[in-house]
Order: sequence, then structure tokens, then C-alpha cells
Amino acid sequence: MSDHNRRLVLAKRPSGMVDESTVRMEEIEVPVPGDGEALARVRYISIDPTIRTWMDDLPGYLPPIAIDEVVRSGGVAEVVESKSEDYAPGDLVFGFTGWQDYVLASQAGGYQSLPGGVPPTLALSLFGITGMTAYFGLLDVGKVKEGDVVVVSGAAGATGSTVGQIAKIKNAAKVIGIAGGPEKCAYIVEELGFDAAIDYKNEDVAARLREAAPEGIDLYFDNVGGEILDACLAQLALRGRIVLCGAIASYNDRSSARGVFNTSALIIRRGRMEGFLILDYFDRLPAAREEMATWLAEGKIKSSEHVVEGLENAPKALNLLFTGGNTGKVIVRV
Amino acid sequence: MSDHNRRLVLAKRPSGMVDESTVRMEEIEVPVPGDGEALARVRYISIDPTIRTWMDDLPGYLPPIAIDEVVRSGGVAEVVESKSEDYAPGDLVFGFTGWQDYVLASQAGGYQSLPGGVPPTLALSLFGITGMTAYFGLLDVGKVKEGDVVVVSGAAGATGSTVGQIAKIKNAAKVIGIAGGPEKCAYIVEELGFDAAIDYKNEDVAARLREAAPEGIDLYFDNVGGEILDACLAQLALRGRIVLCGAIASYNDRSSARGVFNTSALIIRRGRMEGFLILDYFDRLPAAREEMATWLAEGKIKSSEHVVEGLENAPKALNLLFTGGNTGKVIVRV
Repeated sequence: MSDHNRRLVLAKRPSGMVDESTVRMEEIEVPVPGDGEALARVRYISIDPTIRTWMDDLPGYLPPIAIDEVVRSGGVAEVVESKSEDYAPGDLVFGFTGWQDYVLASQAGGYQSLPGGVPPTLALSLFGITGMTAYFGLLDVGKVKEGDVVVVSGAAGATGSTVGQIAKIKNAAKVIGIAGGPEKCAYIVEELGFDAAIDYKNEDVAARLREAAPEGIDLYFDNVGGEILDACLAQLALRGRIVLCGAIASYNDRSSARGVFNTSALIIRRGRMEGFLILDYFDRLPAAREEMATWLAEGKIKSSEHVVEGLENAPKALNLLFTGGNTGKVIVRV
Repeated sequence: MSDHNRRLVLAKRPSGMVDESTVRMEEIEVPVPGDGEALARVRYISIDPTIRTWMDDLPGYLPPIAIDEVVRSGGVAEVVESKSEDYAPGDLVFGFTGWQDYVLASQAGGYQSLPGGVPPTLALSLFGITGMTAYFGLLDVGKVKEGDVVVVSGAAGATGSTVGQIAKIKNAAKVIGIAGGPEKCAYIVEELGFDAAIDYKNEDVAARLREAAPEGIDLYFDNVGGEILDACLAQLALRGRIVLCGAIASYNDRSSARGVFNTSALIIRRGRMEGFLILDYFDRLPAAREEMATWLAEGKIKSSEHVVEGLENAPKALNLLFTGGNTGKVIVRV
């Protein structure tokens, strides 16, 4: 524990991947809680692809991170001093901590206490934004149903791995994951119970989809966009659905993003493509977390975390998501 | 009336626009009706963008037209001799006549009698595939509702012009048409009652959409694909819907089709993009035609036809759809 609040602020908007010039480490005074606030020490930071989009000065679903502002992110913090009835020292709270050592937690700031017994890393993975994104994207937007042939990209990542497992729980006929490299492909089939894996780094995705889903894809959960989205469009089944969750293929260079060419498949196949944000489901999180906890207790779902040590390594941790250097949820332990 | 059956068969698959080498005029014997069939003289042929897609040897919602096969199209024919209880000489029937002088009409072949009092050109426009496509696309897929800001491309075409008028009937807050050239733009505003028009040949569509729909587009009915689809995605309102009806921008050269770059707008805006085919609505056509007839009788909707004379000019008539040489429904009078 340091005497100061170390924080990483956005120094320069990145072009391409985040590098050493993107953020600047600063040390400021530890903030003092006012009435209704608690001082909390950040323990774990959630590393999500969307953080990269907030670094661009482009319109999005949240405002861009301002220059000299702490990099925005979710995180789990431990209360060390409280002037609020809602928090007691030792409590773990979840909220938009950002990349720093200390935060002032408050109800107004949206900080929620972690459900008892949930380890903080799980609170950021299965029970966090990524797991909940998988849950609502698959069930509410994609309306997965028994007998569906489901494809998910980024399948070894935090959201994708959860999507595939929930699809199996919901009796999808076949769950096909697209991931980078033989290790990840083996992992999702052998450890997570996917029916098939396609290694986009070493295989022809379009050809493998035709083999693995000869009758077509009923539901594609898209985490990457670009070429893989196009390949899935080409293999869409009649009345197939595509859930657009993310497009990490283009987050580091949106200007050179590859277009999507096969939108006409949506006409021929009477398909639907729909985007969503977990922000719209915040009121339904408690019920979803309850169901997730049941699946976890029954051994029907597994979580995997990729923990990076040290606040100063947060930028490198973010890049892992785009180089495919992670399996499961990327978390920084502060 | 000729003693032979003149017919235009597909001689060669076109690359790009249809030209003289694409079809070949043949004369064969007039067919003789068997039991349950009627000989019918084709009077009017429906010219639709989708005909161009059937000329390619590519997977689609119907098989490609085979080489040496009569070019497929809808049409209206007049019964001249009948061996069926369903048809009497003088009856007008609608079906897949193709580009030829005579057909054998039958129930098995899907030939339907025209409702009494409906002029044959209207049977192909407002009451035909194009009008019905507008009807179900806007109401059933797009779920247009009071207060919507609606944009439609190909707005002076057969489907687009009907979409805009139905949107007004359904109390859309604003209906914006995208069309090519000042005459078409004046036509849809002054004659058809659109609220605004954007001339894609002379104006910056993206900039004009920001002006005309500053709060965003609630519903975009897409007939063209490509760049205009992208511009509408960029201006999509929260929970905006896009109905994909056609993509004429790419029908003549699918290989060089421009990609769609702004699919991420569907995530940020929680939007939905959905394709459909009128084929799926055939059982609901009678009710839809009844409502259309009411609107027509009440003066709430207008139809416009662009009639080209002579079977031999069918290929040129088809090209009009891609050069924008038509206003309203293109029909060949045989």
C-alpha cells in the first residue's frame, strides 16, 4: 500500500496499439472521503476491449476519456475508511475505479458491494461486465434456443468463453468457437465443452464454417467484426441471428477497418443483426448473477482469469486483448 | 399478337450491366394447354432489380436462371384459351410469366386471377411484388410507428415511393427520401408528400442526413446498400432499425461491392438490421392488397409506372433500374 494515490492518466490519444506514450503515471494525494463516501483501495482492475475505444476522440456510448483524465475502467476496491453507512472497512466494492490506487466510493458514484463469498476476480469475470454481457447478449438479444447451431468469436476470451458455455447449458445443438492458435482451440473444446473450434490464425475460417455448420449458423455472437463477421454472414442459416457485441478487429485502427461485404446474406436468409450494450441491463444484473451462481455451483460453467501484476502494467494488459495474448478474463492485480 | 411464342432466353451470364449478348430472342411454337391449364398472352412484364441477381450463377433465394432458359420475371397475362375451370378467356392472371409472349397458366404454376377492377399496371406496382414489399418491409419488419423519423433510399422507385407514402399514412414524424437528381427529389416531395429529399447525385448524403434528421434515424428502409447504407448507419438513432430490402448498388458487380464500415453503430446505438423477402408473406397478400386498395380509394397513396414498349426492350428496361432512368415501377408492355 502506498502513501500516495498512483494513477495512470491518458497522456496522448493512441494511434494503433497503446504504447508508453499513451498513459502517464502520476502520484497525487490520497483523497479524503466526505460524508456518504468511503476511501477504498483498488485491488483488481477489469481490462476490457472497450477501454481502447474510450481513448479515441470519437462519439461512442460513453464520452471519450479526456486527456489528463484517469483511464476509465471497472474494478474491485477494498474499503479502508468509511463515512458512509453503506460501506464498512474491509468491504469489497465494484465500480468504475479507473487505473489508480485509491477511489472514493459512494452510492452516487454507482459503487456496489460484492455479493458475499464471490472472489473478487470472479466478480470481474463471470459476475462482472464480461460475463453479464455474454448472458444478456446470448439470451436476450440472440434468444438462443434448443437445437441452435451457435458460433462465437473471441471464444477463448472472457465473454466468448462464457457465451459458448451458456449456449451448451441452453441445449444448443452445436457450439463452435473461433479462437487464435491451437492451445486456445484445445482449451475451449477440452476444458469448456465446446463442440468444435476453428483456429482463425491457421485455418480458413469460411471453409471450416461450411464444414462445421453445413446446415448454417443459427446464431453468431460476434466479438471481432471484419473478416470473421463476413464469413459467418456467408454461412448464416435461414432466419439466422447475429449478435454484435464488439469489433476488436478494428478498435486499434478504425480508419482502416475492413468493410463487411456480405450484408446481402441478411436479405437472402432473412437474417437479423443486432447490437447491444450491457449498460441497458443494469437493473437485471442481480437476477442474472443469481442464475450464474447456480450454474457455477452445479459445475456447469467455468471461469478463467488471466491476471497481470501491477498497476503500471495495465497498458500492456490491455494490448493482450488485441494480440490474443490472453485466455479468459484479463485482470490487473494492483 | 404473333403466331409464335417469342421469348428472351439467357444466352450468357452478364458481367456488369445487361447488354445485347445477355439474352437471345427465340421463336417457338405457341404451347398447347393441357387439362387444368390455360393459354395466356403476356401483356405486361414486371421489371425488378432482383431479375439481375437471378442472372448470376450465385446462391440466392431462388435458383439462378439457367443458360437457354427464359428470363424469369413476374407478369400479367390475358387468358385466350382455357382447359381449366379456374380461368376463362379474357381473364387477367398474374404469375411468373417470364420474358415471353405466351404462358400456360395453372394453379400449380401459381397463377392468380387479378382482383376485378384493378388495372394490370397497378397489379404489378402497388398491388404487385414491389408495393407488397414496401408494405411488409415497413410494417412487419421495420415496425414503423407514429413519430418515427424514416429514411428510404431508391425513393422515386417503385418500392421506395410506396414506403415513403405508407410511412406518412402511419404518422411518421418525418419521411426523408434519397433519390438521384433534382427531378426525382421534387417529385417525391411535391407529388408524393415526402417531407424532405436528398439528391445523392449532387449532395453529400451523410451531411444532409445530419441536417434533415438531427435527432437520428429511427427507421431506414434500404434499397441500395453500399455507401448510403453506411451514411444511414452513422446517423442511426438509439434503437434505430434498418430494413434491408435490396442492394442495387452492387447487383451489377458483386465482386467489387463496397463494404459496409459502420456496423459498430449498431452496437453503440443498440440498433437492429434485418433482411426479408416478400416470398415469406404470400399468404398475407390478400389482406395487404385490401388495405392498399382502401388507401388508393381515399387518395392517400399514388402509384407511378414507367412503361417501356415491346418485349425486345426488356433488357433495356432492366438497366433503367440501375442507371436511375425510371421514376416509379418499370413495366414492359408486350
